[in-house]
Amino acid sequence: MNRVASRVATFLIITLLAPLACQSKLDDKETLLQVDRDFARATASRGVDGWISYFAEDGMMLPEGAPPIRGREAIRSLMASFFAVPGNSLEWEPRWSEISRSGDLGYTIGTSVSTSVDSAGQPVSKKGKYLTVWRKMEDGNWRVAADIGNEGSE
Amino acid sequence: MNRVASRVATFLIITLLAPLACQSKLDDKETLLQVDRDFARATASRGVDGWISYFAEDGMMLPEGAPPIRGREAIRSLMASFFAVPGNSLEWEPRWSEISRSGDLGYTIGTSVSTSVDSAGQPVSKKGKYLTVWRKMEDGNWRVAADIGNEGSE
Repeated sequence: MNRVASRVATFLIITLLAPLACQSKLDDKETLLQVDRDFARATASRGVDGWISYFAEDGMMLPEGAPPIRGREAIRSLMASFFAVPGNSLEWEPRWSEISRSGDLGYTIGTSVSTSVDSAGQPVSKKGKYLTVWRKMEDGNWRVAADIGNEGSE
Repeated sequence: MNRVASRVATFLIITLLAPLACQSKLDDKETLLQVDRDFARATASRGVDGWISYFAEDGMMLPEGAPPIRGREAIRSLMASFFAVPGNSLEWEPRWSEISRSGDLGYTIGTSVSTSVDSAGQPVSKKGKYLTVWRKMEDGNWRVAADIGNEGSE
């Protein structure tokens, strides 16, 4: 292959591959929204077990009204009593996501509804919003590196 | 250079460069903590102007008790009245950071103190914590992609 043909071939390869790279980034953003929806479903069906299964081993949770905590077992200790009450629930829906060029770090933002059964047995719901940072693990799974929420949403 | 010498040279280059790559990642983590400290200083000295100067043009703020807002001007509108009151302040100190392999997305976590002057003229301080996601812009500056905080810290 002569030099010109080689350059043309290189140009064609780059031109053909560039849209694939962009597509991959879009797919990853959608992937992260889907992972967050799966996280919500796992929590709805399996309570505290579902909740902690999506955290990285060293993941952090920044709970309203309490200090930051790190690690699955610490997070289980904090959240077990909430999920143990029948009728208590934590539901959310991701709305936005962004991902790093390297595809190993990203975040989702969404709105949430936390429902607690009060002392009279009545469910009390609070609307909120959250920011979750996701890290892609070596096994290819996305896990929560950090999670925080606060009250108030539309 | 024969094939063996070439492989030895390749091995040496990789061995020598790998620690530099790791060092660079550590430097970036420290960079992000420093950027967040600079953000705090800019806000302490310039109020709402300092606050919004560190947000990306499309940056999001998830304020306690209100819906998510996007963009510098919307954030200015929300925060201007808070910073306009003499004695009101928002101070914070980053404690942890993580950054993507590509070095274009990262986050900081830290503790904060929000001080508001009440109707009797007395300062009331609330301790909190926050999660800020940072995006490296094309000009090399890190800017806030998303910011959220809630009450409670050590």
